[in-house]
Amino acid sequence: MGAKGDETRGKLIEATRTLVEEQGYFGAGLNRIIETSGAPRGSVYFHFPGGKDELVAEAIRQSGRDIAALIDSVATDDTADSATALLNAFGDRLEASGWRSGCPVATVALDVAAVNDSIQTECAAAYTAWEQALRIRLAGRPDADDLAASLLAMVEGALLLARAKRSREPLERVARTIRAMI
Amino acid sequence: MGAKGDETRGKLIEATRTLVEEQGYFGAGLNRIIETSGAPRGSVYFHFPGGKDELVAEAIRQSGRDIAALIDSVATDDTADSATALLNAFGDRLEASGWRSGCPVATVALDVAAVNDSIQTECAAAYTAWEQALRIRLAGRPDADDLAASLLAMVEGALLLARAKRSREPLERVARTIRAMI
Repeated sequence: MGAKGDETRGKLIEATRTLVEEQGYFGAGLNRIIETSGAPRGSVYFHFPGGKDELVAEAIRQSGRDIAALIDSVATDDTADSATALLNAFGDRLEASGWRSGCPVATVALDVAAVNDSIQTECAAAYTAWEQALRIRLAGRPDADDLAASLLAMVEGALLLARAKRSREPLERVARTIRAMI
Repeated sequence: MGAKGDETRGKLIEATRTLVEEQGYFGAGLNRIIETSGAPRGSVYFHFPGGKDELVAEAIRQSGRDIAALIDSVATDDTADSATALLNAFGDRLEASGWRSGCPVATVALDVAAVNDSIQTECAAAYTAWEQALRIRLAGRPDADDLAASLLAMVEGALLLARAKRSREPLERVARTIRAMI
């Protein structure tokens, strides 16, 4: 595949990432993905023979890598500081997007994880990778597994509530609880 | 409205509740809602002049009341016991539904809370009511507001992760963390 093909592929993935994050699997129709991407209509099945499901799976994979990198980038030796920084980074992103961009995996996961095996696999892999990235910082604690899973649940839950309420308050409350807890 | 009309209205709401919980706002098309409900096609706009959005708002309102009642029904004087019972009840429901039925508000909230004001209002009201129901049990603690918001975030996050992973493990880990934390 040449540079042009790579570019088209990248545009399709980018459009899919934005649309599934904002409106979920069913809100992101293939026609809208194509329009938003600016890619030629015929290019979808050339780059993604599996069609929309392959495109969504790749979008989740890339978003998963980005968030894992974000978790690493804000990590310090202080778990509470790291969690606060992560919640702030998510809050900035959420507010700047008009409450549209929270967790890039959650909307798709709720829409189809129960019924679509290939997409469920990608969603579960993303969450497991983030949990691992959080767990590394807790090594040595006997409750590291439970705590990493619970930190991720708190961040995901706070992002959901912040979107639903259009407010950063849930993120701020959770940051204070994590600080008191750890 | 007679008993027949009440019955039709109830069937439409029930079908909407199931479909939006499982597949979100965009996955629950009006045609599918009508088919699933068994209600006559023409009855939708008779009972819900605002169409799908009015139907979804009512579905969220009723689901909100049910979960608030669930929170009250499992509550004891021991906050950790209550939280564990709530997570267990959600886990039973989630597993019995083949990982389809988690939080009845979350999928719609992620799909459209940023762009649909009337539905956002219902989603936010449901979450605020649940937070209040949790907060009552924490009265007297100086951190009651933060803790109630954080408990709700943990439950919501754990439900999301359990659906994504098709596993009760996140619910169990969060229950242990809440017990250690409180």
